[in-house]
Amino acid sequence: MDAEVVAVGSELLLGQIVDTNSATIGRHFAEIGLNLFYKTTVGDNLGRVTACLRQALGRSDVVLTTGGIGPTEDDITREAVAGATDRELVFHEDLWQKIQAFFESRGVKASESNRRQAWIPAGAIIVENPVGTAPAFILEHRGRTVITLPGVPREMEYLLRSRVLPYLRERYGIKGEIRLRVLKVVGLGESRVGERIADFMVKAGNPTVGTLAHLGQVDVRIAAKADDRAAAERLIAPIEAEIRTRLGDAVFGADAETLESVIAGRLGTPGGRVALVEVGTAGTATERLAAAVPESLAAGLVAASPRGLDALGVDFGAIDGPLERATAAASAVARWAGVDVGAAVWLEDLPGSAPPIVRAAVAVSVRGRPAGHEHRVGGDRASVRIRAATLLLDEIRRALPGAGS
Amino acid sequence: MDAEVVAVGSELLLGQIVDTNSATIGRHFAEIGLNLFYKTTVGDNLGRVTACLRQALGRSDVVLTTGGIGPTEDDITREAVAGATDRELVFHEDLWQKIQAFFESRGVKASESNRRQAWIPAGAIIVENPVGTAPAFILEHRGRTVITLPGVPREMEYLLRSRVLPYLRERYGIKGEIRLRVLKVVGLGESRVGERIADFMVKAGNPTVGTLAHLGQVDVRIAAKADDRAAAERLIAPIEAEIRTRLGDAVFGADAETLESVIAGRLGTPGGRVALVEVGTAGTATERLAAAVPESLAAGLVAASPRGLDALGVDFGAIDGPLERATAAASAVARWAGVDVGAAVWLEDLPGSAPPIVRAAVAVSVRGRPAGHEHRVGGDRASVRIRAATLLLDEIRRALPGAGS
Repeated sequence: MDAEVVAVGSELLLGQIVDTNSATIGRHFAEIGLNLFYKTTVGDNLGRVTACLRQALGRSDVVLTTGGIGPTEDDITREAVAGATDRELVFHEDLWQKIQAFFESRGVKASESNRRQAWIPAGAIIVENPVGTAPAFILEHRGRTVITLPGVPREMEYLLRSRVLPYLRERYGIKGEIRLRVLKVVGLGESRVGERIADFMVKAGNPTVGTLAHLGQVDVRIAAKADDRAAAERLIAPIEAEIRTRLGDAVFGADAETLESVIAGRLGTPGGRVALVEVGTAGTATERLAAAVPESLAAGLVAASPRGLDALGVDFGAIDGPLERATAAASAVARWAGVDVGAAVWLEDLPGSAPPIVRAAVAVSVRGRPAGHEHRVGGDRASVRIRAATLLLDEIRRALPGAGS
Repeated sequence: MDAEVVAVGSELLLGQIVDTNSATIGRHFAEIGLNLFYKTTVGDNLGRVTACLRQALGRSDVVLTTGGIGPTEDDITREAVAGATDRELVFHEDLWQKIQAFFESRGVKASESNRRQAWIPAGAIIVENPVGTAPAFILEHRGRTVITLPGVPREMEYLLRSRVLPYLRERYGIKGEIRLRVLKVVGLGESRVGERIADFMVKAGNPTVGTLAHLGQVDVRIAAKADDRAAAERLIAPIEAEIRTRLGDAVFGADAETLESVIAGRLGTPGGRVALVEVGTAGTATERLAAAVPESLAAGLVAASPRGLDALGVDFGAIDGPLERATAAASAVARWAGVDVGAAVWLEDLPGSAPPIVRAAVAVSVRGRPAGHEHRVGGDRASVRIRAATLLLDEIRRALPGAGS
């Protein structure tokens, strides 16, 4: 089955916002085996949007539009879909009631312009939108399916997952189930990971295995297609076990797990908390823990230079080398915050290196026993900060006993 | 003049990467007055890319392709452009020499597959790529212009700015200059800003005035078109002055200025530094200062709860209300870090509010004199953190005397 996306919105063409919807749609379509062949972005112009839709209907089974179903004069996707499928727009009084109720629940009155949103092409199936005001719809037209979703990414993805994908599965008899297992790897680069599991990374396999590199982290994606979920899981299990064996403790988790969630689990709740010192990373590791697992963070002390750390009572000027400084800081911050686990990342430029290389020392102190490592990290400042923060979080993970140990 | 973009790459359709190039191109084209009407994304398939290009050449004056000019078998944009314009590919020995030299300068040998990159459609103007290996090219075809650029965003933007825009100006006799002034506003919502300057926000004006909302911040964009830069600046000046008057000190800067850079300027260098306490914001304000103006940050103390602040020696449990706590924390952290300026943001949930509303208190202490404000902030956690951090940075800006005062 072929699919394509028509993204409507002059703001996308003017570069005022980056379109993330299409990537989301591409991923979800791939998971049910729909091939996305084209994506067209077009401005808020009725003639051009209609022409794009007519072309799309001439070559694809499924045409999904995003954007252009808000309440303003610029929102012309409803008219364009009606035009491209030679239908009238029909006013739905019940929909208008629901739109008004949505606003009332937020203590606001719907404006008269919201009434536009209750006009839907004749024969369309209305997809109610509990997360926003714009009603979406699905239209069957001469054996093709047109799906019209809002442009707001959160609303679009919600409706895609909860309404559109189930509809398409039913409509096109998509029986197979694609299951995905993502192993999270840190401490090995993408090419090293690739070398170790090269025999699994063949194009036509089932499961297929692929890697995706992030800064300081690699995902190994194992995707299996089978008649049902259990059968797909059975295909994944032996491959996953073998890959875990080959990559060893570089695999820190799977699927929704993050370094932050693994650390929180190992610190234990209630009560287990870590205190951090960051010099040169702009507090990136602290930010990640504070945002994801605030209950596990005692405090983070962020400084651009050792002068900011005077209150720790350590004379860092008398200590040579970033690893020695990080180690001292990890112990000191644990004492300072009154917790069992302290950790520190300390960046220093390696003099004379071009392109610039940074010495990134990370250290963790558990109940007064500190240990750490020094790494070399290259790249622009922002990437170095993210990589070094990941190295610190990984050092904390490795310093804490896991469930299996 | 009409333009369109054809972005080539299956990875874009599979959602493995988000296409930021099109937004960049849209912005740059808008600045020289080129109207971007369509953007089509298509996978690495020769037939489909060729068909997209034929269609584009049938309706647009300028067709710009991104991606698909690397060294692998998947890279078929060169062939597609040749096919859509009925030309042969021609091998350029001199280009092949240059590609080899590029690799040698990095201590690597060009691989035989890089040879593919020296095949260019007959009659094309070669655009050398000093920032990468993929040679780009421009082709004039029956009164239309085809521009083929690499997909790597850094390379694409470099070639667009340095080679393509000057070429298009010359080719199409684009004389006018569009100048942009962006006023940065904080402390007034987009609708309030819009109300105050509504008379400037008419569609057909010159300059045109528009607003763009970010979390906690609004940009007012004044764009003027004139024969040259000086004339455009003269059109902008009176409008800018009037808008600054109406918005008052909510305007904190213009163009490349940020809250961080304005704070650094007001703290003065060398020596002026601020120390921060953040409770509930995951260190977002600290991160922004540390990343942008590290020399101005003494230290940031980030805690998820008051327990992390014991070392400040303040009994926060005995202090009622977030504003009072933030005020005490601002003074305490300045003493603790030994600097003149301390600042604090303190978030507390407003009990029983649905949707949840957060009380965000921000306070700044300058040489022992603290002052602050309490705000109400709604939205998801991540937005609340960003908004509250912006409120803190703005409070710091307002507490420090500006150049004009």
